[in-house]
Amino acid sequence: MMNKPFRAGVVGATGYTGQEVVRLVRGHPRLQLAFATSESEAGRAAAGNGLRYVRSADAPLAEVDVVFTCLPTGESGPWAVRSAAEGVAAIDLSADLRDGDSGAVYGLPELWREEVRAARLVANPGCYPTGILLGLAPLLGAGLVDRQRAVIVDAASGVTGAGRSARRDLLFGEVAEDYRAYGVGNRHRHVPEIATGLARVAGPTEFVFTPHLLPIRRGILETIYVPVPAGVGAAALASACREAYAGEPFIEVKEELPSVKDVLGRNVVALGFAEVTGLSAGVVLLVAAFDNLLKGAAGQAVQNANLMLGLDEPEGLPL
Amino acid sequence: MMNKPFRAGVVGATGYTGQEVVRLVRGHPRLQLAFATSESEAGRAAAGNGLRYVRSADAPLAEVDVVFTCLPTGESGPWAVRSAAEGVAAIDLSADLRDGDSGAVYGLPELWREEVRAARLVANPGCYPTGILLGLAPLLGAGLVDRQRAVIVDAASGVTGAGRSARRDLLFGEVAEDYRAYGVGNRHRHVPEIATGLARVAGPTEFVFTPHLLPIRRGILETIYVPVPAGVGAAALASACREAYAGEPFIEVKEELPSVKDVLGRNVVALGFAEVTGLSAGVVLLVAAFDNLLKGAAGQAVQNANLMLGLDEPEGLPL
Amino acid sequence: MMNKPFRAGVVGATGYTGQEVVRLVRGHPRLQLAFATSESEAGRAAAGNGLRYVRSADAPLAEVDVVFTCLPTGESGPWAVRSAAEGVAAIDLSADLRDGDSGAVYGLPELWREEVRAARLVANPGCYPTGILLGLAPLLGAGLVDRQRAVIVDAASGVTGAGRSARRDLLFGEVAEDYRAYGVGNRHRHVPEIATGLARVAGPTEFVFTPHLLPIRRGILETIYVPVPAGVGAAALASACREAYAGEPFIEVKEELPSVKDVLGRNVVALGFAEVTGLSAGVVLLVAAFDNLLKGAAGQAVQNANLMLGLDEPEGLPL
Amino acid sequence: MMNKPFRAGVVGATGYTGQEVVRLVRGHPRLQLAFATSESEAGRAAAGNGLRYVRSADAPLAEVDVVFTCLPTGESGPWAVRSAAEGVAAIDLSADLRDGDSGAVYGLPELWREEVRAARLVANPGCYPTGILLGLAPLLGAGLVDRQRAVIVDAASGVTGAGRSARRDLLFGEVAEDYRAYGVGNRHRHVPEIATGLARVAGPTEFVFTPHLLPIRRGILETIYVPVPAGVGAAALASACREAYAGEPFIEVKEELPSVKDVLGRNVVALGFAEVTGLSAGVVLLVAAFDNLLKGAAGQAVQNANLMLGLDEPEGLPL
Repeated sequence: MMNKPFRAGVVGATGYTGQEVVRLVRGHPRLQLAFATSESEAGRAAAGNGLRYVRSADAPLAEVDVVFTCLPTGESGPWAVRSAAEGVAAIDLSADLRDGDSGAVYGLPELWREEVRAARLVANPGCYPTGILLGLAPLLGAGLVDRQRAVIVDAASGVTGAGRSARRDLLFGEVAEDYRAYGVGNRHRHVPEIATGLARVAGPTEFVFTPHLLPIRRGILETIYVPVPAGVGAAALASACREAYAGEPFIEVKEELPSVKDVLGRNVVALGFAEVTGLSAGVVLLVAAFDNLLKGAAGQAVQNANLMLGLDEPEGLPL
Repeated sequence: MMNKPFRAGVVGATGYTGQEVVRLVRGHPRLQLAFATSESEAGRAAAGNGLRYVRSADAPLAEVDVVFTCLPTGESGPWAVRSAAEGVAAIDLSADLRDGDSGAVYGLPELWREEVRAARLVANPGCYPTGILLGLAPLLGAGLVDRQRAVIVDAASGVTGAGRSARRDLLFGEVAEDYRAYGVGNRHRHVPEIATGLARVAGPTEFVFTPHLLPIRRGILETIYVPVPAGVGAAALASACREAYAGEPFIEVKEELPSVKDVLGRNVVALGFAEVTGLSAGVVLLVAAFDNLLKGAAGQAVQNANLMLGLDEPEGLPL
Repeated sequence: MMNKPFRAGVVGATGYTGQEVVRLVRGHPRLQLAFATSESEAGRAAAGNGLRYVRSADAPLAEVDVVFTCLPTGESGPWAVRSAAEGVAAIDLSADLRDGDSGAVYGLPELWREEVRAARLVANPGCYPTGILLGLAPLLGAGLVDRQRAVIVDAASGVTGAGRSARRDLLFGEVAEDYRAYGVGNRHRHVPEIATGLARVAGPTEFVFTPHLLPIRRGILETIYVPVPAGVGAAALASACREAYAGEPFIEVKEELPSVKDVLGRNVVALGFAEVTGLSAGVVLLVAAFDNLLKGAAGQAVQNANLMLGLDEPEGLPL
Repeated sequence: MMNKPFRAGVVGATGYTGQEVVRLVRGHPRLQLAFATSESEAGRAAAGNGLRYVRSADAPLAEVDVVFTCLPTGESGPWAVRSAAEGVAAIDLSADLRDGDSGAVYGLPELWREEVRAARLVANPGCYPTGILLGLAPLLGAGLVDRQRAVIVDAASGVTGAGRSARRDLLFGEVAEDYRAYGVGNRHRHVPEIATGLARVAGPTEFVFTPHLLPIRRGILETIYVPVPAGVGAAALASACREAYAGEPFIEVKEELPSVKDVLGRNVVALGFAEVTGLSAGVVLLVAAFDNLLKGAAGQAVQNANLMLGLDEPEGLPL
């Protein structure tokens, strides 16, 4: 006997993350798309199966079991809070609820799974923090990081990470054949989220975070310089991650450093480690690669929804 | 009365650096292209003005004043050494002569101009080292680097930096929509060259160098994490560079961090600095951007040639 | 009770089409990957589930129900012929068997489904011909093409259509920021295949075929100028296609002209039509878009395999 | 004795064509940039030499000899008309004045040079029409086109052709890995301009024009299907072009079909021809390639300015 599907709504369905949530919900064996909102596309067919975009004011919130809010930061969080208050499981994909003030649970299942399972309101992590926290948590937990020195995180993201708003600096004519740093000097809006996450794992941790804009559509690569105590090398760090993530379907600890192409279209974070020679104070290279729209956004949101709804965690997620 | 032009030959003229040297020589007011070699294209017209590619064995070395050798590493250096021995000013663009064993002068004019002026045989610097050495030399010289900690250099290069050989990993289908680290852990062949250069400036200096492959045609961005003594900030580093490079036409110290697009098609290294907040041991961000085929290869080679021939250093070079 | 899966082998599994067949077989509910061959990667893990690449000489042909041959043209066809002779359902993805001399059935299901169902040896169509034949067949069949004038097919393909061999002209540094015609003047190797296909549908049909190389990884767009009899317009052509393809899951007749992005990752051909104003002899624009690696190669191959094995035609194929 | 430079102003200097005009004026031996306007960047440094952007209302029109108007269509033409009325040589790069109603001369020097030389107000041609008119004019003039059949023009342009406005459909995330037709069915705004130009050369001429958007920054390739009378082939067409354009520095008739990469950064239109086999009514392929920002816009504008100011036509233009 087939189980009745859970009904899902997507608020803000035409941005890059919203589109990806819609796609995942459509392919999900236990979820059914009940509505998808768009102010600009309201009334138009929402890619397939008879559904049309509705204005968010017209979204039939009472009819759904779970809602994904994918509006711009500032608008998105309140929608999720209101949904949760009305008894709908709510996952917010914006930055609005990640500071914890709203009572939302921070939805990084591999680190805080049971909290997610019990939650009605989840703040889906930012793309950059997902890789950084998943990569560093086992190392910090196992005492493999030299706390006297800062961790350096040099990160690069495809343009869909910046959203789908019409901005001159995101035009093809500007981005193609270019590469640039932005939000440098620990001024990017993900910095407090990274700091909070690391502190939860292992107390205050110093780091430098430098994001760059890549001329690719999707994917993130984080090259992380981990200061290590004397005598600790790449093998120890890899072992700690393998042990911590044994049985985790969405984390891959690789023999070689992963690249963006290795993870596109899959809801995984791939981690790899490399020794650095010639230093008096040791550094190990950690590279984290993932698809910013999947494990960095929509995929992780569905992973959270699966937990909140009591479904198998990997259901409907591409591996 | 016009001065008689110097005659120039290019050995290995169909790779990316060779093509760029040919283009620069053609547009140079005081150089005249006398021959361009290519084994595979011998006999075919060499883009314009009646010249045809010749086999390197047929290159009329005796007829030229200056030769640029742009063959693959291993083949290129011996050609340059032989040319210099026959009295021709020779600039080798491969990695062959950069270790100094050959007696070649290391051709980084902004740091060692007088040596270049007096040389008959010049090893043109590697692309990555050019930005690193030019960026760090004034800081090391002014005592603005904390020597107890390693400098981290996270670098990214367009594909022409890897040459024009038919390699599967450089196919468009492999590189587009990807980003990856390679030669990590201080194993890249430019590491000894960087180490030697830094040591000449300021004694042995520890660093970590991680290059990445960008899906762009040309351009390099180096994001450098400079450990600084207490109380030293970005402004001091910028000042040191401005002072050191006052009057240098090919170095730009910017108010904002430069991007790849800012320097494409120009023989410059652009440098920018940014403060990093929230650290107990200070780090300043230094970003160096340059066109790998110009200031990172062919442009710098012509700059060296100008010095060796007694011409104005900027002649024939795009700013 | 679950049905026992059919066992599948892939010969030439590391080219772009071979990789895609492997990916589809792995996700297919009724197929199981029994072997994947690669001369260069033999012994290495074949992405996931324990399987390792074997040399084609070691492929256990006797153990499989179906084989996909994805070697370069010249090597691939003989492999398929031999497999079929040994009783294995064989689909050849090269150009070797498309001329019909081998007795292979031309595997374009929407036009010749019953032949495919009965076949043991199938020649999978070329990428360009797939869109042209599917687009034009209903129009020719319904007498909506003016046979006195030639059909003009201006086509553009992503680089994976050219295979994964190390060729200088396919390097990122050559293809990016470029666009070029090749194999023009009806000299491309797909021209006889197109001519044969059109002749089977409606007798000899004159056409001009001009392929171009696009700086994208995958996808084909064919802009086809269809000469129409007086009084015939875009609506009539769209109707003919809608009628001919009613119920076909892999053909979409759109209200608007499709673009490459509309079809990436899906095993469909999307067709759209547009009126052209201001002509004394009418022309209707037909645009066909499809993913060259799916409906143009691997997807269509699996579609053929499904038919040959008596499975549901859409099984395991992304829509 | 050096001649005094002519003073030039650029109205709308931060769009892609405006930037390119500024760059050309700066490198021009006989022009001096007197002002560059930008509403959004007013007060900021205009890349180099001390000049700052001014609002267009503050542009010192009385101080210049020539003005280039590069505003959006609708705003640009009136500026040029007013400038010409005040005695300044004016070249408008928008579509505003191309219909001839304003009394502006259509500035395609290779076809109508003397008119340009005598003009005070010039409408700079659209990018697409430039290649089409230069390619077809000699063929129509020599009677080498079968007037009973329509010419098919299948064209593709890089994104800078669409301007630098913040539009969602021009985002990197939308354009990369895509290819699409737009403005099809002779509905593109360049169609009347093409029709008028062809009519001036050879009377009313039927054609179909289909532009496509390429995922590249700059460059246009036009693949033109020329219907030819019986017995006429590619060689005759190439000869007619070579003869018509003998001595023209900005038109190259090639032995092989040109590609976008062949012309980037140069103010030329490259033309190539190829025979098509297997047709009862002959068609010859004509491919025109050019840089949309140079010979398709800013380069041609400077070429027109040179003529209007009595300078050598190629001065300051890259070949």
